[in-house]
Amino acid sequence: MKKTFLTLLAIVALAAVATAQELRYVDAVDLGIHGHTKKSDISPFYRFDHTPYEGFNKTIISYSKEPVGLYVAFKTNSSQISASWEWKPRRMGDNITGILQAGLDLYIKENGKWKFAAVGRVSTLPENNKRTRSLIKNLDEGEKECLLYLPCWCELTKLEIGIDEGATIKGLPSPFRHKVIVHGSSITHGASASRPAMTYPALMSRNLGINFINFGFSGQCKMQPQFLEFLKSCEADAFVFDAFSNPSEKQIVERLENFVAELVKAHPGKPLIFIQSPIDQDSKFDTKKYASRMSLTATAAKMMKRLEKQYKDVYFLAVPDVLGTDGTIDNSHPTDVGFDRFIKAYQPKIAKILKKYGIK
Amino acid sequence: MKKTFLTLLAIVALAAVATAQELRYVDAVDLGIHGHTKKSDISPFYRFDHTPYEGFNKTIISYSKEPVGLYVAFKTNSSQISASWEWKPRRMGDNITGILQAGLDLYIKENGKWKFAAVGRVSTLPENNKRTRSLIKNLDEGEKECLLYLPCWCELTKLEIGIDEGATIKGLPSPFRHKVIVHGSSITHGASASRPAMTYPALMSRNLGINFINFGFSGQCKMQPQFLEFLKSCEADAFVFDAFSNPSEKQIVERLENFVAELVKAHPGKPLIFIQSPIDQDSKFDTKKYASRMSLTATAAKMMKRLEKQYKDVYFLAVPDVLGTDGTIDNSHPTDVGFDRFIKAYQPKIAKILKKYGIK
Repeated sequence: MKKTFLTLLAIVALAAVATAQELRYVDAVDLGIHGHTKKSDISPFYRFDHTPYEGFNKTIISYSKEPVGLYVAFKTNSSQISASWEWKPRRMGDNITGILQAGLDLYIKENGKWKFAAVGRVSTLPENNKRTRSLIKNLDEGEKECLLYLPCWCELTKLEIGIDEGATIKGLPSPFRHKVIVHGSSITHGASASRPAMTYPALMSRNLGINFINFGFSGQCKMQPQFLEFLKSCEADAFVFDAFSNPSEKQIVERLENFVAELVKAHPGKPLIFIQSPIDQDSKFDTKKYASRMSLTATAAKMMKRLEKQYKDVYFLAVPDVLGTDGTIDNSHPTDVGFDRFIKAYQPKIAKILKKYGIK
Repeated sequence: MKKTFLTLLAIVALAAVATAQELRYVDAVDLGIHGHTKKSDISPFYRFDHTPYEGFNKTIISYSKEPVGLYVAFKTNSSQISASWEWKPRRMGDNITGILQAGLDLYIKENGKWKFAAVGRVSTLPENNKRTRSLIKNLDEGEKECLLYLPCWCELTKLEIGIDEGATIKGLPSPFRHKVIVHGSSITHGASASRPAMTYPALMSRNLGINFINFGFSGQCKMQPQFLEFLKSCEADAFVFDAFSNPSEKQIVERLENFVAELVKAHPGKPLIFIQSPIDQDSKFDTKKYASRMSLTATAAKMMKRLEKQYKDVYFLAVPDVLGTDGTIDNSHPTDVGFDRFIKAYQPKIAKILKKYGIK
């Protein structure tokens, strides 16, 4: 019995080696990584280079090294696609999935539309920070255009894409037009979408064909002078701001006017679209927290309405109760259904503004 | 500096003790746990007692000890609600959240509707399997009816509810009418809803006021003789089956007819509603897997259409492409948006059938 088991084990091991040998792995960096605000010289997986900006806190510096919103575009005629990736050990959060944090999302173009094809699954144990996994097999013949979304909450150190030994693979430019930077809180960063491709900037990119760049920083989007300096220096066709989830009411009062004025000056003629933070109406049972949230929201709205009148390219969008019932995981972070409602409400308004500027 | 820090720490510790002293903890078991198919004498947190049924595998036995779909109903005039709970260490999955696995969901009734009020958050490290946490504070005055949903993927060993020292708390009967057992796969069990209250049986219970009992077993719902025996012995007003996600096509062919015949005999005049497994159309890029899924689905549908004609209380519901685009986390498990679509499609059909039997 034991001998049979060992023989079986040997056969399985040999089969695994044979399968592995059939695949050829290509460095994703050679194919090209897209989705940056500005590429970093330090690592192609970094969202941006924080080093020229003094005073960013540890959390922001750590997030600057994560590939949030980044993706690889390629075409291949392989019958299967695998991935081999590694990331720095990191404890998983409880209000997001392991797949969002360290996993991969594969999309394939079909009749001009991007369709979710497969996911790269992970372990939730911090020490299990390496994976080599088949993403998809048995693809039909012919060349396919693929998008591979990188993880949202870890520092990626390696990514290779595996294809049939004899197949071809070629990096493609980003399939999305223009460049719209979306700066915001955890909601923009991705909490609590189910997987990397389900953040609202990624979804809107696929929906509209416009490159919405994820520049969300969980808990950290407070109109800090460092972010302001960085955003002033970015080349972009437009900006979207989820700017009122993280700062205190006092910070909004102190910083918003200057933040807007400086950005208007740095990006003349470019639309700056501010979105009201979605407030989970389910959360109103904590009367104190809710009252303080409503006060902050009213202050931000009042200021934004004034700024909207003052500057012709500044916009403020506010949809009440945009998340509906049961739209969040924890009374603040939308789930896929919350984001679905958020996009249904905001995307047409954003698209309409962008269109006026030729961004379509 | 160090001294100041230590003093601060002492103050924080004292404050924590003071807060803890202000709360009175009540055993949830004394308030009453609801949502069982049949209560187990071994533990009130067990979904059912597997011991009389020989031959269940290890996974099913482990799931039998988990409080999937169970909830506590109570009323209190406390200004805050806390929880203290413990569970057996368990590795977290990557396609579900920690909150779904080991967390708690608090709902409060408002104008006759159950509203999501707060969540009991956890750690994703297996060894951190105890929590004492404030769920909500600053509730306005007066008595409130509450529902606390128990975790979906862990063995709960203790649950206490904390209220103001001077407040009252009283267990309530289940607020839901009738008893409809929903037997199914991981999709019924809860993968990949964001939190315990977002599984489709829990959602349909709140939507319709009917008690849909979660009897889902991830990967294990294969019309086994043990499940059949158990279900025959259950008292219920109706049954819903998500029966075609886990078995092989061969198992369906071999088992379905007898499964239906035996249940019809055991529960004469009770509706038995079979739902077609949702197939993620995004998953069709794996041509082999998709073809085999379609073949299984066609076989099940053909058999069900025959059985539907044969037995007047047997129903088969099939909505094509019910999950839409981007409705799953991993090409098989719906997220909250997938379940939202699933419920929009199936709930009216299920409600219509149940109504014919006075279940409304």
